[in-house]
Amino acid sequence: MNKNYIVPNEWSIIEDGFDNENVEASESLFSIGNGAMGQRANFEEDYSGSTFQGSYIGGIYYPDKTRVGWWKNGYPEYFAKVLNAPNWIGIHIEINGIKFDLHTCKVSNFKRELNMKEGWLSRSFAAELTSGEQIQVKTKRFISVEFNETGVIEYHIKALNFSGEITYSPYVDAGIMNEDTNYDEFFWEILEIVEGENSGCILSKTLKTEFHVSTAMQVSLAINNSEINVPQKTTIEDKKLTYSYKLNVNEGDTATIYKYGSYTSSLNYNIEELNSASLSNVQNAKELGFKQLLDSQKKSWEAIWKTADIVIEGDIKAQQGIRFNIFQLNQTYMGTDSRLNIGPKGFTGEKYGGSTYWDTEAYCIPFYMATKDATVAKNLLLYRYNHLGKAIENAQKLGFKNGAALYPMVTMNGEECHNEWEITFEEIHRNGAMVYGIYNYVNYTQDFDYVVKNGLEVMIAIARFWHQRANFSEAKGQYVILGVTGPNEYENNVNNNYYTNYLAKWCIEYAVECINKVKHNYVSDFDRIMDKTNLSIQEMYQWLKISDNMYFPFDEEKQVFLQQDGFLDKELIPVDKLDKSQRPINQKWSWDRILRSCYIKQADVLQGMFLFEDRFSKEELARHFDFYEPLTVHESSLSPCVHSILAASIDRMPKAYEQYVRTSRLDLDDYNHEVHEGCHITSMAGTWMSVVQGFGGMRVWEDGILSFNPQIPEEWKSYSFTINFRGSTIKVYKSQTECKFLNESGKDVKMFVNNKEVKIPANQLVTI
Amino acid sequence: MNKNYIVPNEWSIIEDGFDNENVEASESLFSIGNGAMGQRANFEEDYSGSTFQGSYIGGIYYPDKTRVGWWKNGYPEYFAKVLNAPNWIGIHIEINGIKFDLHTCKVSNFKRELNMKEGWLSRSFAAELTSGEQIQVKTKRFISVEFNETGVIEYHIKALNFSGEITYSPYVDAGIMNEDTNYDEFFWEILEIVEGENSGCILSKTLKTEFHVSTAMQVSLAINNSEINVPQKTTIEDKKLTYSYKLNVNEGDTATIYKYGSYTSSLNYNIEELNSASLSNVQNAKELGFKQLLDSQKKSWEAIWKTADIVIEGDIKAQQGIRFNIFQLNQTYMGTDSRLNIGPKGFTGEKYGGSTYWDTEAYCIPFYMATKDATVAKNLLLYRYNHLGKAIENAQKLGFKNGAALYPMVTMNGEECHNEWEITFEEIHRNGAMVYGIYNYVNYTQDFDYVVKNGLEVMIAIARFWHQRANFSEAKGQYVILGVTGPNEYENNVNNNYYTNYLAKWCIEYAVECINKVKHNYVSDFDRIMDKTNLSIQEMYQWLKISDNMYFPFDEEKQVFLQQDGFLDKELIPVDKLDKSQRPINQKWSWDRILRSCYIKQADVLQGMFLFEDRFSKEELARHFDFYEPLTVHESSLSPCVHSILAASIDRMPKAYEQYVRTSRLDLDDYNHEVHEGCHITSMAGTWMSVVQGFGGMRVWEDGILSFNPQIPEEWKSYSFTINFRGSTIKVYKSQTECKFLNESGKDVKMFVNNKEVKIPANQLVTI
Repeated sequence: MNKNYIVPNEWSIIEDGFDNENVEASESLFSIGNGAMGQRANFEEDYSGSTFQGSYIGGIYYPDKTRVGWWKNGYPEYFAKVLNAPNWIGIHIEINGIKFDLHTCKVSNFKRELNMKEGWLSRSFAAELTSGEQIQVKTKRFISVEFNETGVIEYHIKALNFSGEITYSPYVDAGIMNEDTNYDEFFWEILEIVEGENSGCILSKTLKTEFHVSTAMQVSLAINNSEINVPQKTTIEDKKLTYSYKLNVNEGDTATIYKYGSYTSSLNYNIEELNSASLSNVQNAKELGFKQLLDSQKKSWEAIWKTADIVIEGDIKAQQGIRFNIFQLNQTYMGTDSRLNIGPKGFTGEKYGGSTYWDTEAYCIPFYMATKDATVAKNLLLYRYNHLGKAIENAQKLGFKNGAALYPMVTMNGEECHNEWEITFEEIHRNGAMVYGIYNYVNYTQDFDYVVKNGLEVMIAIARFWHQRANFSEAKGQYVILGVTGPNEYENNVNNNYYTNYLAKWCIEYAVECINKVKHNYVSDFDRIMDKTNLSIQEMYQWLKISDNMYFPFDEEKQVFLQQDGFLDKELIPVDKLDKSQRPINQKWSWDRILRSCYIKQADVLQGMFLFEDRFSKEELARHFDFYEPLTVHESSLSPCVHSILAASIDRMPKAYEQYVRTSRLDLDDYNHEVHEGCHITSMAGTWMSVVQGFGGMRVWEDGILSFNPQIPEEWKSYSFTINFRGSTIKVYKSQTECKFLNESGKDVKMFVNNKEVKIPANQLVTI
Repeated sequence: MNKNYIVPNEWSIIEDGFDNENVEASESLFSIGNGAMGQRANFEEDYSGSTFQGSYIGGIYYPDKTRVGWWKNGYPEYFAKVLNAPNWIGIHIEINGIKFDLHTCKVSNFKRELNMKEGWLSRSFAAELTSGEQIQVKTKRFISVEFNETGVIEYHIKALNFSGEITYSPYVDAGIMNEDTNYDEFFWEILEIVEGENSGCILSKTLKTEFHVSTAMQVSLAINNSEINVPQKTTIEDKKLTYSYKLNVNEGDTATIYKYGSYTSSLNYNIEELNSASLSNVQNAKELGFKQLLDSQKKSWEAIWKTADIVIEGDIKAQQGIRFNIFQLNQTYMGTDSRLNIGPKGFTGEKYGGSTYWDTEAYCIPFYMATKDATVAKNLLLYRYNHLGKAIENAQKLGFKNGAALYPMVTMNGEECHNEWEITFEEIHRNGAMVYGIYNYVNYTQDFDYVVKNGLEVMIAIARFWHQRANFSEAKGQYVILGVTGPNEYENNVNNNYYTNYLAKWCIEYAVECINKVKHNYVSDFDRIMDKTNLSIQEMYQWLKISDNMYFPFDEEKQVFLQQDGFLDKELIPVDKLDKSQRPINQKWSWDRILRSCYIKQADVLQGMFLFEDRFSKEELARHFDFYEPLTVHESSLSPCVHSILAASIDRMPKAYEQYVRTSRLDLDDYNHEVHEGCHITSMAGTWMSVVQGFGGMRVWEDGILSFNPQIPEEWKSYSFTINFRGSTIKVYKSQTECKFLNESGKDVKMFVNNKEVKIPANQLVTI
């Protein structure tokens, strides 16, 4: 564990005391967002220490020219990057003419709090400047959920030991660069800078993609909480608009600035309306005022928590962890805009580029499906449906035909934008997740109409891909899938990855099952789809030849499915026998050494068993868990949650708890030594699953039945969660001694608890 | 076949007629060099069409910062590049004030000739400028073998239809950039520009490596072959020194410029002497004059051809091909400087970077050993011996210990400078070639002293590498080598590549054999080496556990060794069943598709059998040849020669001939569609082998015995070659009807011809 400085608290993330070394990590952890825009926890004032400035707007990206050492056929020419957006939070501050900079001050009583219950970030501290002035600073900021183009800052400075001048110089700066630019280029062009009285904005556009964004600010000032008018000095530089205000203070006075910021973008407005819209946003915000906006923010988050909260009693770190995960997921994606998706770093960083990975389908859909209205999960599915054409193009680039689709590894707009051959071209298992997302959604919602209207086309295109991608091995007399990278990216270009082969077989079977269902129950839709996709029954039979005769590597002696051909040729030394100095291996070992080792970055065979748990006996699960868990280093954020869930289902509660802590506090405790780059957002949905599906034992089976099998870790007194299930809200409460269900909808719900069918009457708390 | 414009000729490479489309290809093919410096066949005058300017100095490199998309642990930080050197050949030309540029002229009777017998390049043509002036141009240039820092140009212009002014503006330009610069940087810094009367120079140094180079020119002018003095106008720009001379001509007059150029570098001089040395070189050259220098050049090449020539009767294209290969090999490396090596593009381009690949040991040593003095091959071995420390460091970076060495994939100075993980980290078979080079040299020369003094240390370090790199497979009960790329780079990260496993086993066995020989015959050396390498007999036993129990993938049914585990899972569709539109697959297919296909870029299992041919029966060879040859696309230049040799040894002469034509005319006919980037120099040594070892059946066995088994392709009337064998020069002559040997040394030679021992008396022509 690298860092251990976050103060445990049920509802807040708290940093107590100032340490330069933690600044970048805290910038990630204390990030705020509202699904539409987000902001790393950078200081408003100047900071000359190490910092990673990040402001982001959902859906705004830039296709940076691909950079590789050696070009390989098939690489995408462009790599869509999450774009660092113009800075709206900045305020230069001077105390008696001296720049205020925490890096050069003596700082005391520093406290930072991210209040997750109410959705705001605050800082308070005392600072002594090198010139001797002592000040007390209190700031609060949030990005409004209700007004989702608006952010708000309150910034108080109290003069502790001097009378003199405090200068606030709030600014908007569009001269920002991505940390991960490939060619040190600026991605924004400045079109217009509009100045006004206490308000102004910059209109800028992204190069190539030509997204237009107006970034506005409005300020008001106060002394001792009384608003004052202060003469404004305007500076317009190349890409930056700054207003300066000098406030005279006496010892003991508090000088305050309120800064309201807004982004409006051409995703939502005509270009000519952008400036007036952003200026109107900040004007409205100012008129409502900080307090009223904060009240609205509290209400918004209260509503979110009502259906999403998980309460854990008796384990404050576990409680803090799960709330942090749920909070960040909501900050990243609210589900209201089907053009957006759940970026791996959300609005907390820009690493990896692209907003959409297989993570969405494999990890995130259950969370959004269960904690929000079903339309949210459907929006996520539609996002992929809308990209089907691009996925077909992507497959064509790699030599596939006849409408076969390969969904991208990483994308912003449906196009592939990742370029490591061993991942981009070979980590094709992602195609399986696309179908699994539909399957999961249909089981959960029983909304088969989605399949008929949209999903089936995706399934057909993916079945075609698997059909073309597999080949018949004369040697084995079965179909094989060669040259893939499975979910465990510490193996590249392997043959017959169990997970990939399993998903390929299943995708074909499920597609055929759905086609048959449509054929019998939706006759006109059937004709429309067969026509549109140019599919014949003969072609389907060709697919089935493969799914019926797919090869899976299996060891007779150990009775385990092997991750891939040849896995048992490796030296199988358990992770706990590996010297600690060698961990994490991805930072200590060269790539070839990792590849030929037995160490598993993330659940792979076990990932497959997690997705299709009902198809394996408990003994099979345990045998595979016991084989693979000791070899797994969990250097992917997506791994511990799966191991936690499987451990719970085979009654290994201590292991389930250990992996739960790891997944829920991955970023808070910085297990992988990289939180400064941003948080691991998508794995947070896995954390949610490890409580609800792992400890809660919640499943929705293929026949649509909901079941629970709740267990409780020894370390907890109780836990509870709520799920939204086909219009019913069901609250599950589990303590060491009892298990209660509350059905808050207007209708009775039938379900299975511990393998027994029970009826939970409407609006009644039932103890089982 | 892409291009087919080179006129067949026994001794010359000839281009007849001007075609813009061929300019860059010809720039490669007509390159000249002398082992120390080289020059692409760029025009002296300006040319506004597509061109790739290239001037090179042996041993001068630049470590460009590595560029990759995604960094992987173990990548070298720098990538040593072959440096494009200051331009000494350039002459701006104006006819009556109009720039002369072949791209804008009407050109007729264009002829370019690279005379390989005498070592010079010429052009002649008539041109009509857009302004109407008609001129006849004749140029000749060469890079002197005798004066190996000096190049010479003769440039005649005859005024055909006008009287007026011809302006020659010869220049030296150090403002050059590498085509393959990673960050568009200039790698040269200009230190001093020295002007003088008709001569001048620029002193420049490379960034980082700080190689200093002085580039000088000296000019003289003539009208109708009478030297004249013309006023000189000097222009000094940032990085360029230009002298202009206006020559008045009458219709029918010929205006001539002689330009002498020279590089001197800090590899050979103190920095302060560089300018005077280069100026003195061009001064001397001018004093000797063009004609005398040309005579010396003819003599130098006559001497080279005396021991290196191969004569083929009855097949002019085959004759031209082999001479082109021999000529380019000599232009690239003369063997006189042990700091230099045989770059894959020689002085004909800069692609791939680095000067040294496994090609040197696996392909080139036999050529240099047989056509030059034995010290040349020894210099090549010493080059590696001198890099042993760096090879040990390289292995350490990848996690190896105890003095294990991994020689670099690509290097300039011993450090690894290549960065594709699947090659750099995994193409470890190159280590085997290092030892094979020694083995080959010892067999050929019987100079075991080299092993004692130098070679054994290399062998021990490499045996250690294999020992650590292999692991015991419980599943197989044998030692395996996982995660490698074999010689066939169309497979990456495979397990148990037959070639690699074979070489690993052999390297250990040969090292132990040599250690034992040293132990018994060189007692004090033995102690010294054991002490220096800290080797114990116990450690050797550990190595032998691996070599004694190495696993080789083998198919019982087909009775063939498999290229790697799982090879038979592929769809085995012969290359000739592949649609022509799909070739070359490396330009048509995405990388994943290539990897999972059965197609073999270059000899792999067959490469191993070629190196150890005596260990396999003719039937075994034939069986493997018949299995692999139909699957081989030969998209590496290093492939056809091996197939040609093996085909000859199993009596498949038509196939041997087909592959011979392919290897010998690979660049002349541009089989791989890339000759514009430069020629494939190292494979040219393979071409030589395919005549001498393939058709000639020449072998030197482990016991030092020389043998021949000459055969002749149907297409030829006869062929002959000469080898230098332990001080004896043996000329082999084979026609359809007879086979003759001439031993030109002072002593009798015993050898085997067609498996029968014969004695060839000194200085006597023997028919066998």
